[in-house]
Amino acid sequence: MGSIAPTAVELDASVVKVTRSTNLRNVPLPGSLDELSHSYCSDHMVTVRWTFTNGWETPEVKPFQNLSIPPTASCLHYATECFEGMKVYRGYDGKLRLFRPDLNGQRLSNSAIRASLPSFRFGELKRLIAKLMQIDGLRWLPKDQPGKFLYLRPTLIGSGTQLGVQAPNEATLFIIAVPWPDPSSKLKNIPGEASGLKLLASEPDTIRAWPGGFGYAKLGANYGPSLAAHGKAQAQGFDQVLWLFGDDRQVTEAGASNFFIVWENAQTGKRELVTAPLENQLILPGVTRRSVLELARTHLTQVVGDLGALEVVEKTFTIGDVEAAWKEGRVIEAFVCGTAFFITPVKLIRNGDVDIELLKAGQRAGYAALIKSWLEAIMYGKDGQEAHEWSYLIENESEK
Amino acid sequence: MGSIAPTAVELDASVVKVTRSTNLRNVPLPGSLDELSHSYCSDHMVTVRWTFTNGWETPEVKPFQNLSIPPTASCLHYATECFEGMKVYRGYDGKLRLFRPDLNGQRLSNSAIRASLPSFRFGELKRLIAKLMQIDGLRWLPKDQPGKFLYLRPTLIGSGTQLGVQAPNEATLFIIAVPWPDPSSKLKNIPGEASGLKLLASEPDTIRAWPGGFGYAKLGANYGPSLAAHGKAQAQGFDQVLWLFGDDRQVTEAGASNFFIVWENAQTGKRELVTAPLENQLILPGVTRRSVLELARTHLTQVVGDLGALEVVEKTFTIGDVEAAWKEGRVIEAFVCGTAFFITPVKLIRNGDVDIELLKAGQRAGYAALIKSWLEAIMYGKDGQEAHEWSYLIENESEK
Repeated sequence: MGSIAPTAVELDASVVKVTRSTNLRNVPLPGSLDELSHSYCSDHMVTVRWTFTNGWETPEVKPFQNLSIPPTASCLHYATECFEGMKVYRGYDGKLRLFRPDLNGQRLSNSAIRASLPSFRFGELKRLIAKLMQIDGLRWLPKDQPGKFLYLRPTLIGSGTQLGVQAPNEATLFIIAVPWPDPSSKLKNIPGEASGLKLLASEPDTIRAWPGGFGYAKLGANYGPSLAAHGKAQAQGFDQVLWLFGDDRQVTEAGASNFFIVWENAQTGKRELVTAPLENQLILPGVTRRSVLELARTHLTQVVGDLGALEVVEKTFTIGDVEAAWKEGRVIEAFVCGTAFFITPVKLIRNGDVDIELLKAGQRAGYAALIKSWLEAIMYGKDGQEAHEWSYLIENESEK
Repeated sequence: MGSIAPTAVELDASVVKVTRSTNLRNVPLPGSLDELSHSYCSDHMVTVRWTFTNGWETPEVKPFQNLSIPPTASCLHYATECFEGMKVYRGYDGKLRLFRPDLNGQRLSNSAIRASLPSFRFGELKRLIAKLMQIDGLRWLPKDQPGKFLYLRPTLIGSGTQLGVQAPNEATLFIIAVPWPDPSSKLKNIPGEASGLKLLASEPDTIRAWPGGFGYAKLGANYGPSLAAHGKAQAQGFDQVLWLFGDDRQVTEAGASNFFIVWENAQTGKRELVTAPLENQLILPGVTRRSVLELARTHLTQVVGDLGALEVVEKTFTIGDVEAAWKEGRVIEAFVCGTAFFITPVKLIRNGDVDIELLKAGQRAGYAALIKSWLEAIMYGKDGQEAHEWSYLIENESEK
């Protein structure tokens, strides 16, 4: 199981059963408790049931509601669950856009295989999201509020009734849309301090992922066990854990984001943009990570304004390398990236009893800001990026 | 979060709200499709809600039903879930028993902490199960059918509405009871072959657990990602994966059971009962594992009948050690143990292209059989073990 039987039906977003809500919810105001709650969803949701015998059933768009789940369902016992984090953007040209949604579709389908859930034709995911936003888009992202976004959460769970330890023979894909506060609004602005994330380097007794494990897949199993370390870091005033791995303490991820550093290479003296590699399957292949690398390789290998040219490198590096570069004054800046946190500078990493201060008050993470502005132009269709190849336009929004 | 606020209410099984089912289900016949389905539960279930603000609410016993779960619930996205596997036994003296239930309660509470879920007074778990079985016991385990059992599945999930990556602020503990086929009935009896499990040693590209991870906790996150390897092993005709770890390929667990081997030590020449240690937190601290060790240390360090005296050893050993012992004729027998598989001999381990045959046709795993008989006497209150300290009696079964 876990893959589609040869005769079973493929996921198909071309025919969708729609049931409209007759009880529309209030759209929360920016900064309201409802928006900050991370639990208030739009009026509708997508659900698609899959069975091993028949494959994917007809997708439904229906009023947002609780799921009815058997107490024996695989997702409640064996973490047969995976998800994606995406956003839908209201553009400055009035249009709704997704950002490289096929990369999310592909990753969700790959995660599904790792969790013994059904894979699917990944291109259908963006079409299902389009069906949802054609209905909820105009109310939840009004055309006169460009620059707004909703967080999207496509999720796939083992939802059948079998308690036996085996691949699920039934699954449910669902998609919800959630108003989400701007992540940068979560950063405390402390007078005399730079605005950026504070990361706490993980201890050797807590490891997020391991070779032969599943760190590269967006499985629920990567998150629940990491919450304790995350909570501990937050209680000490940090925003995220910087996850290290191995006896040499390699830098892998920051919280649920990818981590980048710009430094001068001690050997070559050249300025490098560095992030951990994908090969050992320890880190999540982030869509934002990939986009940052592609943009940097295209545009930042030459001088841009007052920013020096970069070499773009995916390689293993350790917290010791970071500390040494910082002590020798070779670090230019560091930032994390991902859908939830987008591109956010890192101002400090605490590693044991050393505070590695990466951004001082008044300093600016110039590369991060520039890359962020490029991505925003693509996401929100502005600055001449109205028709970028990374955008997927959602058309035919319905007036009611 | 993840632990109870100082003023919050503790889990308390002394007051339970009971709602009786008015629509009793058929009790499946042994060997029926319903019983084999692993998805057919008894008439009632236990649920207890916890909130960070108020702690544990009044437990409920109510008709078995689907759970209504918010699509944003933590358990569906971040695998904030843990469980226990237990059984309730109808004794030969007509009484209902649990086997060392406080060990399960303690482990569930420990697992909860690892998954940032609420811990609880572990002694209450057995009392909640008693409330359920006082209502369902007589119908589902009739007094005139001694030797029958139901599988029990206490489960704790993050059930609140917050999608943010953080410790759940709401959780639900539920307990269901499931008719379960005798695990030994799953073993194929092939003429000319011994009856026992066939294990496939895991490849280095798939590991179950790692140091600094959560292999020692009964989290859903340990199971879903292992289903792919399990399914692959089953497709090749094996019953379970033998999970190895590290460059030296240490033997850790077999499927979801603990693994024991009896061999002659090459150095000392002494006969040893060996299993992997708990210290490095790679394996689950099984209740059956612990009971096997305790019984063996008490009763098997001297000759019993035709079985030689054993030294009982918890230590790291490798698949290479097993293969060498087998080649040199030093292996006596091997078995797995756990609640689901109880005590089951291993007849073969395939490691790469080597088939390590541990039990030949006509041979008997004598130690496994003896330990199993001792445990059965305690579980089912027979052979003078009617009042063993490992038993918890469920009294006051209700007639309707």
